[in-house]
Amino acid sequence: MGIGDPTNVGMVAGIGRLLQDVRRKRPVIHHITNYVTVNDCANAVLAIGASPIMADDIDEVEEIVSVSSALVLNIGTLNGRTIDSMLAAARKANELSIPVVLDPVGAGASGLRNRTVERLIKEIRVDVLRGNMSEIRFVAGLGAATKGVDVSDADAAVGTEAGGAIAENVAKTLGCVTAITGATDIISDGERTIFVENGTEMLSKVTGTGCVCSSLVGAFCGAARGVDGGPPVAPAGMVDHVMLIAAAGGILSMGVAGEIALHRAGASGPGSFHLGLIDAIGELDAETLARRARIREA
Amino acid sequence: MGIGDPTNVGMVAGIGRLLQDVRRKRPVIHHITNYVTVNDCANAVLAIGASPIMADDIDEVEEIVSVSSALVLNIGTLNGRTIDSMLAAARKANELSIPVVLDPVGAGASGLRNRTVERLIKEIRVDVLRGNMSEIRFVAGLGAATKGVDVSDADAAVGTEAGGAIAENVAKTLGCVTAITGATDIISDGERTIFVENGTEMLSKVTGTGCVCSSLVGAFCGAARGVDGGPPVAPAGMVDHVMLIAAAGGILSMGVAGEIALHRAGASGPGSFHLGLIDAIGELDAETLARRARIREA
Amino acid sequence: MGIGDPTNVGMVAGIGRLLQDVRRKRPVIHHITNYVTVNDCANAVLAIGASPIMADDIDEVEEIVSVSSALVLNIGTLNGRTIDSMLAAARKANELSIPVVLDPVGAGASGLRNRTVERLIKEIRVDVLRGNMSEIRFVAGLGAATKGVDVSDADAAVGTEAGGAIAENVAKTLGCVTAITGATDIISDGERTIFVENGTEMLSKVTGTGCVCSSLVGAFCGAARGVDGGPPVAPAGMVDHVMLIAAAGGILSMGVAGEIALHRAGASGPGSFHLGLIDAIGELDAETLARRARIREA
Repeated sequence: MGIGDPTNVGMVAGIGRLLQDVRRKRPVIHHITNYVTVNDCANAVLAIGASPIMADDIDEVEEIVSVSSALVLNIGTLNGRTIDSMLAAARKANELSIPVVLDPVGAGASGLRNRTVERLIKEIRVDVLRGNMSEIRFVAGLGAATKGVDVSDADAAVGTEAGGAIAENVAKTLGCVTAITGATDIISDGERTIFVENGTEMLSKVTGTGCVCSSLVGAFCGAARGVDGGPPVAPAGMVDHVMLIAAAGGILSMGVAGEIALHRAGASGPGSFHLGLIDAIGELDAETLARRARIREA
Repeated sequence: MGIGDPTNVGMVAGIGRLLQDVRRKRPVIHHITNYVTVNDCANAVLAIGASPIMADDIDEVEEIVSVSSALVLNIGTLNGRTIDSMLAAARKANELSIPVVLDPVGAGASGLRNRTVERLIKEIRVDVLRGNMSEIRFVAGLGAATKGVDVSDADAAVGTEAGGAIAENVAKTLGCVTAITGATDIISDGERTIFVENGTEMLSKVTGTGCVCSSLVGAFCGAARGVDGGPPVAPAGMVDHVMLIAAAGGILSMGVAGEIALHRAGASGPGSFHLGLIDAIGELDAETLARRARIREA
Repeated sequence: MGIGDPTNVGMVAGIGRLLQDVRRKRPVIHHITNYVTVNDCANAVLAIGASPIMADDIDEVEEIVSVSSALVLNIGTLNGRTIDSMLAAARKANELSIPVVLDPVGAGASGLRNRTVERLIKEIRVDVLRGNMSEIRFVAGLGAATKGVDVSDADAAVGTEAGGAIAENVAKTLGCVTAITGATDIISDGERTIFVENGTEMLSKVTGTGCVCSSLVGAFCGAARGVDGGPPVAPAGMVDHVMLIAAAGGILSMGVAGEIALHRAGASGPGSFHLGLIDAIGELDAETLARRARIREA
């Protein structure tokens, strides 16, 4: 199905509605994340309209996640202390039906990251998995050519259709929405696979735009969950795909904000673009997303 | 007493003098703080004219605080390792009459935070306690409706006069200056309670403006302390209230910088406002503070 | 030798060639660094054209450094956990001939920092040591008057020629390039000592510009190393001084970027300057460095 057909209008409308819910419900998004990009994650979550809380001590993560509407796990600067905290927080989130977003930063780059990702996937239920092609290929057991935390050239060259098959396969295997972000973002829940063409190359020139994207997904997931712990809220006929819509919402928001920030910052460089991103996230609304969305379904 | 009366002129003059002392003495401000907003705290402390040092290992905090002029404790991303460091640093600070500022981020949100705040308050002498209404209500034993690290709607709705009574009561009970920041900032040392009407709603759209405010308070407290460990320096007749003036100085600086940054950034959004805050802090002077201050005393 | 003479043309040409190699090879730069300035370090490394990875857990640092082209160790917020990680990563780097940059933040300010620096210098081979005058004087055993993490007034007043002798002496003693950055940057490998007059006072108003400088040195060192682990690449006749050129490259880049950022930000303040620095680093090229370089050799 192509851009502009009724299904996509429904998808974009669903995203718009969720964005309004983010702003209205102001969900608390609990993060256990890295110390490199944590400030951007917090500011992006505030800018989209949610409320971030960062807490990683084993003695409080269960309590903190219990008063939150979503949990974002990011292994960017993983260490022994926080692995246990991630597991404990996620178990509690699972128990309370609080959505869990996993960003497997650098999966494939070290045994510690690999073992941790495997353990998280095995021991907890992840609702949305978001990574670059190298990271998701690792999770798919495809032997990624991970080069640090940035996608490798080889993995970046994987075609869109092949990427769609990978995302769909991982989604089916793990039972979670799987998102591969890159030049084209690919998002699948195993049944439906969508491609988002928004964004700009400049997003790869600022550290943490992947992390921020995962945090925005967390904000949308948190809004999708009833604030009172009730069932997720989705447009009519889309309730079975609400986490797909939430993931697409965070990813589309990042892409559109990147385009707006690039337009504003012009040739000024990555520093100006960096702050412009937060400005742009702050002014996103359903109308802007609908007008700019370049989404198609497989 | 109303805005513009002699008492307030004296207060504002005292703040202006302390700001000049910050710039002249360049006090070292030791922080044990969270990894979310630490960069902003360091840059704000530099911008106001002081020198930040962040150090949290138990093996060095006593030495570091000994060469500092103030200690800022912030429990934003508390963990078992840093709690002991906070206690050790604060005990040494108490011993050396180095002012201690405590920012009880998220107090009320978890048992760990609650126990830590209680322990800090019980075991060390805090000179200035600064938090939002939820956090200070928790400290006051009033059962805050803490929602993450942001003030809850219910607590935000506590009236200014009721807030003044809470601040005064906590200040008397704990024997420390107590500051509740929000739409109106309330600062009391138990004898005198002042209200600062400066600031902008936009400050709540950037993560860490509370932390930065506490760091600025730390800079003023550090300047109030004689560099040589001598008695605090305060305008004539105000020596008994020097910590009140220091707290008001940091809080007024934050509010005025917020107003200036908002004026400059216009509708650009929270990213532009964020950097504009640091610019504005960098250019504050006694004259600007005096001209813009909207302070009244209970 | 003066600015503009043939030796310096060769030095600047060598730096320009290395900058092109940074952009072409996109070396992965492994950091074990502090949580205060880590985001700026990552963004600066991306802006200069390399790929940052921050990883500090003992269970992964050897693997991570093995796929990297340089290792940057920064003790800004040192703790017991990361000291062991630094040693393990550096030993592996030494084994694989991967350049190691050491930034002894706050050396002289605490026993922990002093012992750690001494241990690192004794147990591992450092390729480039970069610090302010207080920190390098401490390493030189000269009894620095370290005041926190900023250079002390007394140490800042050490003359350029005396500084050159200190850098040369440390370089000879430790067998590593030694760089003292300040109003004049001094870089020596024990045989050759060069002075860089670029930069601006404004760099001292933003936290972490020293850390960022060390990270840029890391990027240049990483580019100097053959991507395949082959011998370092240097302009003809300069192979023996390739680490000197790499250190000078990072330091010159910082100084020139500071000048460009100051010119753009004008009187706007440290916040604007901060982001302008990243913009300016992103647009540096060999021609700009050559045109602006103010380098002389002792």
